[in-house]
Amino acid sequence: MPPISIGLVGLGKIARDQHLPAIQANPGYRLVAGADPQGGVEGLAHYPSLEAMLSAEPDLDAVAICTPTRLRYAQARQALEAGKHVLLEKPPGATLSEVEALVELAEGCPGTLFAAWHSQQAGGVEAAREWLAAREIRAVEIEWKEDVRVWHPGQAWLWEPGGMGVFDPGINALSVATRVLPRPFFLRQATLDVPANCQTPIAAELAFMDADETPIAAAFDFRQTGEVTWEVRIETDAGRLRLSHGGNRLLIDDDVVVDAPAGEGGDEPARLAAMVGQEYAGLYARFAELAAAGRSEVDVAPLRQVADAFLYGRRESVEPFEP
Amino acid sequence: MPPISIGLVGLGKIARDQHLPAIQANPGYRLVAGADPQGGVEGLAHYPSLEAMLSAEPDLDAVAICTPTRLRYAQARQALEAGKHVLLEKPPGATLSEVEALVELAEGCPGTLFAAWHSQQAGGVEAAREWLAAREIRAVEIEWKEDVRVWHPGQAWLWEPGGMGVFDPGINALSVATRVLPRPFFLRQATLDVPANCQTPIAAELAFMDADETPIAAAFDFRQTGEVTWEVRIETDAGRLRLSHGGNRLLIDDDVVVDAPAGEGGDEPARLAAMVGQEYAGLYARFAELAAAGRSEVDVAPLRQVADAFLYGRRESVEPFEP
Repeated sequence: MPPISIGLVGLGKIARDQHLPAIQANPGYRLVAGADPQGGVEGLAHYPSLEAMLSAEPDLDAVAICTPTRLRYAQARQALEAGKHVLLEKPPGATLSEVEALVELAEGCPGTLFAAWHSQQAGGVEAAREWLAAREIRAVEIEWKEDVRVWHPGQAWLWEPGGMGVFDPGINALSVATRVLPRPFFLRQATLDVPANCQTPIAAELAFMDADETPIAAAFDFRQTGEVTWEVRIETDAGRLRLSHGGNRLLIDDDVVVDAPAGEGGDEPARLAAMVGQEYAGLYARFAELAAAGRSEVDVAPLRQVADAFLYGRRESVEPFEP
Repeated sequence: MPPISIGLVGLGKIARDQHLPAIQANPGYRLVAGADPQGGVEGLAHYPSLEAMLSAEPDLDAVAICTPTRLRYAQARQALEAGKHVLLEKPPGATLSEVEALVELAEGCPGTLFAAWHSQQAGGVEAAREWLAAREIRAVEIEWKEDVRVWHPGQAWLWEPGGMGVFDPGINALSVATRVLPRPFFLRQATLDVPANCQTPIAAELAFMDADETPIAAAFDFRQTGEVTWEVRIETDAGRLRLSHGGNRLLIDDDVVVDAPAGEGGDEPARLAAMVGQEYAGLYARFAELAAAGRSEVDVAPLRQVADAFLYGRRESVEPFEP
């Protein structure tokens, strides 16, 4: 099969850090061009807009969309209607309603629509899902904490409406939990700590429950200093499962079952960036499979959980955030 | 066909004002009992809980659930698993995730699950939907304003997380708009005015767009004094449609096409209550049809729009609300 020729739309931090290297490392893809009104990337054909790229590069098979979420619906629509496969960086849109509309639209288009959740590609996630499918789950604790100043320098959009604040990393945790847990779960109570000068929370405490009343607690916090904590702990009738390092390390009763590559060596940011790099490699492998099969995959559950938290959570005003 | 024997769960204001009279006026139903920990209704068998009602009245065919939204998932689940038909007062749950879980559950149960949106039953709604299906829509204006002190006396839950504030009536407007407009639409911008002493908005300005970039503006306000405004105005290539009185009066280019009964006579609250009474009569007629056909009907679009507004809207703090 010839490689998938692909263009990138939106050449910001996530495109440069993750999408470009993931595409370039995968022989199943040929990176053709990038589109961004702010300028291009050294050595890559550049267009000021998706429209310009689509009209100058009619042989593109696929488009990966990494623009601010408010732009994604119109761009994804344009690319789907032009017959392209479309990968959406997470979250797949600014609102649930537009994502649902895209799903419907994609049903009538030849291309594949793929909502990418990179944490679902973490090395331990599928093994955890399989192990849990046969167990009775007693309790779940999710802890997803990182230093916003280290991990999101200068990302002022985080604090604006739609930026989701601590739910920007927290949605990764939710994408892991909705993937590995065998039953749907839903929010019963939430507290969102919102800095007095921001629109979105810097921390959140969430209490969910599944249909069997299993308690599922999540704590998200951007005020962590030092190492990150990206962890899900699950008590079952047959032992204790622990997914750490964003899902890349899987322990069952303290035995290491999966330890994804690049988990060792270097300083912490470098190690974690390498792990996330593996996740993006997994996303592009999955996208190629879906395109070959002519199938779309749009998991809305993580974004729906975040919308539920904003709808149903109690907001507490906390001290202003000074970047 | 014998009448549907039905029990009511949650005997608060909406149950007494609307559900009881609608059921009693419909010969297709036999009202068997009510369940509420706070006490019963004169002349009706009473139980302290749904559980007690289900076990004492095994021949019940159906249950209508009018409890606070946080209780509805577990109650609906219990009733569906007991093989009953279930009607959910709006909104169908506290969160979208739990409503999706109920929809999935209902697929494997013998009973019908019906998410009731009373404004979708307003007299002019179906005629508006049909007329609009063949038109090109240019612009939409939604105005839904009422005096919270007159229409929601003592309803402190409105101002708590999940109470939705002005979206409690606003979701009626959204249920009409999502029903009559031919294409899905989604939020582009929103401002929510939240009183400094409340969790939920007292007013909201919303700007939506559909796939064709048709502008759809909505203004919700609880600070209206005097008469209510419950209106949707739609400009098309073939004239101007106006749905007023909560969808009960339909005008096309100022010609009255539908004027639902009970629109005249009496003072305003009495007239509007009578109109809403017609809407609940429509809901119970629809519920009986669905039960006979063995089909569920759960329209999540209105609640999804509200969740999107909470997720994506900008919050402005406004003066405290004093009931």
